[in-house]
Amino acid sequence: MADAVPDVGLEPGSVGIVATQTLTVASPPDALEMDCGRRLGPIQVAYETYGRLNPRKDNAILILHALSGDAHAAGRYRPDEPKPGWWDLMIGPGKAFDTRRYFVICTNVLGGCKGSTGPSSENPETGKPFGLTFPILTIGDMVKVQKLVLDRLGITRLLSLSGGSMGGMQALEWILRYPESVQSAVIIASTSKLSPQSIAFNEVGRHAIISDPNWKNGDYYGGPLPATGLSIARMIGHITYLSETSMNQKFGRRLLNQAEYSFEFKREFEVESYLHHQGASFVKRFDANSYLYITKAMDYYDAAVDWGGGSLEKACARIRAKTLVLSFTSDWLFPSHQSRELVKALRQNGKDVSYLEIESTYGHDAFLLENPALTRAVGSFLDNLSEGGQVS
Amino acid sequence: MADAVPDVGLEPGSVGIVATQTLTVASPPDALEMDCGRRLGPIQVAYETYGRLNPRKDNAILILHALSGDAHAAGRYRPDEPKPGWWDLMIGPGKAFDTRRYFVICTNVLGGCKGSTGPSSENPETGKPFGLTFPILTIGDMVKVQKLVLDRLGITRLLSLSGGSMGGMQALEWILRYPESVQSAVIIASTSKLSPQSIAFNEVGRHAIISDPNWKNGDYYGGPLPATGLSIARMIGHITYLSETSMNQKFGRRLLNQAEYSFEFKREFEVESYLHHQGASFVKRFDANSYLYITKAMDYYDAAVDWGGGSLEKACARIRAKTLVLSFTSDWLFPSHQSRELVKALRQNGKDVSYLEIESTYGHDAFLLENPALTRAVGSFLDNLSEGGQVS
Repeated sequence: MADAVPDVGLEPGSVGIVATQTLTVASPPDALEMDCGRRLGPIQVAYETYGRLNPRKDNAILILHALSGDAHAAGRYRPDEPKPGWWDLMIGPGKAFDTRRYFVICTNVLGGCKGSTGPSSENPETGKPFGLTFPILTIGDMVKVQKLVLDRLGITRLLSLSGGSMGGMQALEWILRYPESVQSAVIIASTSKLSPQSIAFNEVGRHAIISDPNWKNGDYYGGPLPATGLSIARMIGHITYLSETSMNQKFGRRLLNQAEYSFEFKREFEVESYLHHQGASFVKRFDANSYLYITKAMDYYDAAVDWGGGSLEKACARIRAKTLVLSFTSDWLFPSHQSRELVKALRQNGKDVSYLEIESTYGHDAFLLENPALTRAVGSFLDNLSEGGQVS
Repeated sequence: MADAVPDVGLEPGSVGIVATQTLTVASPPDALEMDCGRRLGPIQVAYETYGRLNPRKDNAILILHALSGDAHAAGRYRPDEPKPGWWDLMIGPGKAFDTRRYFVICTNVLGGCKGSTGPSSENPETGKPFGLTFPILTIGDMVKVQKLVLDRLGITRLLSLSGGSMGGMQALEWILRYPESVQSAVIIASTSKLSPQSIAFNEVGRHAIISDPNWKNGDYYGGPLPATGLSIARMIGHITYLSETSMNQKFGRRLLNQAEYSFEFKREFEVESYLHHQGASFVKRFDANSYLYITKAMDYYDAAVDWGGGSLEKACARIRAKTLVLSFTSDWLFPSHQSRELVKALRQNGKDVSYLEIESTYGHDAFLLENPALTRAVGSFLDNLSEGGQVS
């Protein structure tokens, strides 16, 4: 694998210029056995790495992305790439995930549309995109694929893994499914199961996509995209990623380029313009079917049911990883009480868990934004792990 | 006007069998001057009344409905009507709005689709439905029409008026616009202006309607309805009317008629089924264009801007009515801090205002549901008004 080039004149703390790579796992006859009962393979996985794997291969940290994320977690593809990777604030030399010490890996999830096999990929049996013939997948299936990738990279045990939102659900699934393979986990703005409110928001988004005449039962590739449906789904999503406070601060009731109401049906509040912009730009970079599959995987996830017969406390008995759980005060999509429920279940089992609720007005988005408390909490958690010289 | 028939064997406390009536106001040359600068008339208004207007005509209470409400606030059209009017829990003999003492009136708002003139009404100039030629209206316009109705009924001063949600916005507008015409107001689960979060939810709903191919720039009457768009708007609405807690209590993560996940894209969580049911039934009873117009009126409303040059405190200086402001702990669409902001502005002016935050897990919907604290608060507020014998 090619390492990131650390210095091409990018800003200090950047991992530098990076490239997304791919590898293929689960090739038949070793196709992936999915939770739905179907088998899938070969599976292509897009991934990026930052920093260097040490000779003992014990400094690897897996980063897990959220619903609309990808493998491009840090650095830039080109010096003039407008934005760095999605968690560049957290990953780099001297940052929370310090690439001078750790070997950081991020993969695009199974079912995604950013280089990993998903519904927009070609079905090798037909030569056409899978569309809705792609099997329904779970958070567990995503994690199984990540495990195959790490096996291929020769990493048998992770120093840590971390993600926010759906990334945190994957992190939890990792330490439940592969307790011997993970030393620690940082679970941020996440939950052991979605609330019915979150399922409801996801379902309205899916319904908007499926109702778009261009969706054509998922068989829209090569034709017009179900852009309206996907943009509505994304607009709903963005409302839930912010908070009432942050929307007040960011937009208030300000009008866009006008002093008075237009008395027409047009976008005139700044918040309306923001949402439409988010919806339109998402359509350019994300596949509607991937949105359906990934939100369904989130809805299905319930760690207590999957690993504890309905009891989160019983499920957590199998965890061996030292865990840091973080939530944000204004996050109403993955509210703090969901994190506390997980922390309680871990403590009931006497597990090594730390919890911090971080003050923020930014809502669920807080895990993606600059936050000194977040950086400090993750950085010192990892520092404490490596004390004793395990990490070179 | 025909009074309600109090006893046909309906449940105790019912106002009995009722009928919606209509009257016409603002006939040219006295057409309504709307805030948008256009004139509209004649305007038909649907209304219901319960109880009897006393000889002094000083026992009248105006009830103001929310976004999807109508004039049918209490009683039943027929003994076998499945549900009574939308605020039957609050209106009737012995109830908070006690029809043994008060003459209660409810009108369908301007722009509505339940008997009052709105975008689905025939434009007398063309003989066809207005559609998008209907003028954009405001909460103020709704209130001006209500005032014309009361004038016609010979009521020059209201004992009280009350509404929840958008009904509360109308109540506030009433006491600002016609300070001499209202003795008191009960403003429930409401606000002096929508937050950007609420505007955002409204805009996504409108966008879903406008993007529906059947919407046809609002000219869909007589053809297929923009049912998909309107149902998406309603599904979003219903999420915001409930609370995370009430959704947990009502649905949890329960599946519908199945023990295991289907691993298909179908509705399988109870909460999904609930939302789809709400969306589908709304389409049968509500006009998509009315949804556009009424949500726009809500977005536009800002009492501070309209009456106080941007200052709610200044705006409230003109209020003469004794006011009761009520909010619910779990209402996140019209959260308590918005009510408190109004109460503060009234108190800064030394106005007679009482405020109560009522404990409830039901979210915004709480104002429509049985709640002894709500009934008590409204009932005793009205009792105190009429002490001294003004009301016979």
